[in-house]
Amino acid sequence: MKLQEAKEKLIELQQKMAAYNHATSLIYYDGATTAPKGVADNRAQSLAILSQESYLLATSEATVGLLELLDGNQAELTQHEKRQVQLLLKDIRMMQKIPLEEYVAFQRVMVEADDTWHTAKEKNDWKSFEPILTKVFDYHKKIAAWCAPEKAAYDYWLDHYEEGISMASCDAFFTTLREHIVPLLKRVQAKPQLDNAILHGHFPAADQEKFSFELMKVMGLSLDRVGLATTEHPFTINLGSHLDERITTHYYEDDFSNSMYSVIHEGGHALYDTGSAAELAYTVLDCGVSMGIHESQSRFFENIIGRSRAFCEYIFPVVQKYFPQVQGTAEDLYRAVNRAEPGLIRIEADELTYALHIMVRYELEKRLFANELEVKDLPAEWNRLYKEYLGVEVPDDTHGVLQDGHWAGGNIGYFPSYALGSAYGAQYLRKMKETVDVDACVRAGNFAPIDEWLRERIWQYGSLLTPAEVFRRATGEEFDPTVFTTYLEEKFTELYGL
Amino acid sequence: MKLQEAKEKLIELQQKMAAYNHATSLIYYDGATTAPKGVADNRAQSLAILSQESYLLATSEATVGLLELLDGNQAELTQHEKRQVQLLLKDIRMMQKIPLEEYVAFQRVMVEADDTWHTAKEKNDWKSFEPILTKVFDYHKKIAAWCAPEKAAYDYWLDHYEEGISMASCDAFFTTLREHIVPLLKRVQAKPQLDNAILHGHFPAADQEKFSFELMKVMGLSLDRVGLATTEHPFTINLGSHLDERITTHYYEDDFSNSMYSVIHEGGHALYDTGSAAELAYTVLDCGVSMGIHESQSRFFENIIGRSRAFCEYIFPVVQKYFPQVQGTAEDLYRAVNRAEPGLIRIEADELTYALHIMVRYELEKRLFANELEVKDLPAEWNRLYKEYLGVEVPDDTHGVLQDGHWAGGNIGYFPSYALGSAYGAQYLRKMKETVDVDACVRAGNFAPIDEWLRERIWQYGSLLTPAEVFRRATGEEFDPTVFTTYLEEKFTELYGL
Repeated sequence: MKLQEAKEKLIELQQKMAAYNHATSLIYYDGATTAPKGVADNRAQSLAILSQESYLLATSEATVGLLELLDGNQAELTQHEKRQVQLLLKDIRMMQKIPLEEYVAFQRVMVEADDTWHTAKEKNDWKSFEPILTKVFDYHKKIAAWCAPEKAAYDYWLDHYEEGISMASCDAFFTTLREHIVPLLKRVQAKPQLDNAILHGHFPAADQEKFSFELMKVMGLSLDRVGLATTEHPFTINLGSHLDERITTHYYEDDFSNSMYSVIHEGGHALYDTGSAAELAYTVLDCGVSMGIHESQSRFFENIIGRSRAFCEYIFPVVQKYFPQVQGTAEDLYRAVNRAEPGLIRIEADELTYALHIMVRYELEKRLFANELEVKDLPAEWNRLYKEYLGVEVPDDTHGVLQDGHWAGGNIGYFPSYALGSAYGAQYLRKMKETVDVDACVRAGNFAPIDEWLRERIWQYGSLLTPAEVFRRATGEEFDPTVFTTYLEEKFTELYGL
Repeated sequence: MKLQEAKEKLIELQQKMAAYNHATSLIYYDGATTAPKGVADNRAQSLAILSQESYLLATSEATVGLLELLDGNQAELTQHEKRQVQLLLKDIRMMQKIPLEEYVAFQRVMVEADDTWHTAKEKNDWKSFEPILTKVFDYHKKIAAWCAPEKAAYDYWLDHYEEGISMASCDAFFTTLREHIVPLLKRVQAKPQLDNAILHGHFPAADQEKFSFELMKVMGLSLDRVGLATTEHPFTINLGSHLDERITTHYYEDDFSNSMYSVIHEGGHALYDTGSAAELAYTVLDCGVSMGIHESQSRFFENIIGRSRAFCEYIFPVVQKYFPQVQGTAEDLYRAVNRAEPGLIRIEADELTYALHIMVRYELEKRLFANELEVKDLPAEWNRLYKEYLGVEVPDDTHGVLQDGHWAGGNIGYFPSYALGSAYGAQYLRKMKETVDVDACVRAGNFAPIDEWLRERIWQYGSLLTPAEVFRRATGEEFDPTVFTTYLEEKFTELYGL
């Protein structure tokens, strides 16, 4: 095959993969939004077949031959093509190193783990989950040894989810966080709690929905390309390309702020995805590069912008327009949405305590991979660390070690990227303030200069650059977690009058 | 390949086709329901790729070889397998008879025709549509000659959409209809019009939606397997199998009956599809066999049941529960929903005049295929026939010859099945009444005996039997359109006091 022909086939391959992604993502989205309740089996059947078709396409001899031909001619490839080949070969190379029968057995273990976890969480039954979770961790150790025998197993998986990170970098990061956040939280807890009564009342879902669209518009989302729906748990999904994005939220009629921050958070993800350069559509470079950079966008909008005083000043009259029953001041709103208190559940955590939840998981994963901890001892260690880091007693495993589906879903080594994402945002803010009057823009509801700053430095690149390259291009600096801890210290010192 | 292996591959082939159908149907459904406005290009790209993948699968050498092997061993096949092979080979055999370059050119003509029609209808610009429609009819004549040189071209296309029908059977059918309906309508028009004021007022969409779910439940639809959404034009779609069905409606806030009858009509389609026997799922035998039988279900529920006096007696208090402002009696409702008046638009036509709209189209198609009429003369002939059959003056082509998308969509020979479906229902009713007290059941909101009658005779067979076989099994009789015309005569004579 001539190189030019191979390049054309590379485009065609990615277009097909995008179409399969569109199909499977939409089937998932339909299931979470509007599908009737009894059609899960039909969905599972179609998802299994379409995923297999897509997998066969991506790993066929013809595809591997094509990618290896291109990979052997790097000098002739554009920057885009090089990165496309690299990303497409990544999973294939991993699979090539795993013995086939082990790969099949691993897939079966993961299906069983996921099924078992759902029931175990529902029934608070750790014992039923322990044996299969043991197998899950064993397989993750074995796979790491096959794929990267030169590395520690956990380093392999950390890098797998967030290219470039390692235990060394995470240790340094979490140590800094712990040294600052734990004492800060203790001082906060010694003070009278902030009042959040302003958030409560009766807020009909239909009014909240109208408010959601206004939030999306203010953030700079194109309502022509980003849809909004309601689901049990909010999420963001793109359908085949960055040209069709959907976000979801959940309306609690007794608290308007819950959905408000879901929309802003998911809106941040959607801004990142839909901000990909037009030419990335229908390639593997389309949409955000990693979970860490993704969370750095969503949590930037949710917390750093959305929980700022300037945003509360802007949004308070808008809130009153949609919910005239809300009384008080923008300052009351600012204090209410920044109330910090340690809790049991990660996904309900506030800006200050969130990273502590991640640290518990990081510690446990690290020790499991180092064989310093056994799966059977996880619940006791979980509960001990929650007491130590957050000061809370875990009443049962459903609200403890069974709360997240990540381990059962095979996403081990994934948690740290959430905390990294939170911390990246503080450094963006510092850099952004050199050229943009962020507070003035937010106070005026003028997000364009902020969006432009992020689009130019981050969004447009999709997955073309690695997470580390994206971060350096955005900030011109190395990552420094004290920027984040300083941001937290200043904010909560002022809020709680420490 | 051994026969047993071929049989397994036949199952696998159909499962894959079902998954592709799920994907493409869902992408279409999403576009009509919840997708944001600006994502049509993304949808088109994925639909094109997935349709092509599915097409390549269905027509690959391997598939054709498999089907021909099975077809050559009919004695070893079950009834289900025989019919599966027959249906799968139908399109392949058609394609094999069309020269490849002509097939490609035909596809291009159809894409252009569809695009052109949308704009032509919007702008009332027949002239822009005429050249491409001429090509569409020319191709339909040529394809018929390639595929079935022994038949008249129109007979080929009639049979293509409704297995077993022909000009001979349609002529007899429409002649009977015309002889009865035209004079009946004249007598109706000589009488004072029925009052339909009861249908009008203000009916919020949210209340109508709750009412829709109640209607679906009463009809016997499983809300666990049949979803409801809103779209510009109501439709029914299944997603890969009869196990996941969706209907849509459109709420007009000034008239509750419009959506009510859409829900009942689409609900009839959904009852038919979802009533397929469980073992038909993921085969080409799943879901209804033809448009004619499909319409015989939807129009049976909409008109014969839904516009009966018994149904009005049942539903009137339910209407008042959801819309307390509705005053009057069940009899007022019965008269209002049966008001008959000739109009310009087929999809807005009432039970009495609907078939007249179809007759115009049938006449024109027949004469075009027989070269007794040229495409350029269509508008004048259309207007003349509307005057003759319905007594109305067509003000412009948008409300005349350009109103339907069927010809531009390549569905020529498709219209008669709508009228046949309407007529079939009257004969089902007569037969059903031999064993079921239909009026008493409907008056009590007890649809189970009616559904069971239809399920046992029609629904469970999916596409296993031909339309004619389905009809005979249901009624034990040959088709007799005078049953339908007698039904109309009795109903409207009583209603209008003729």
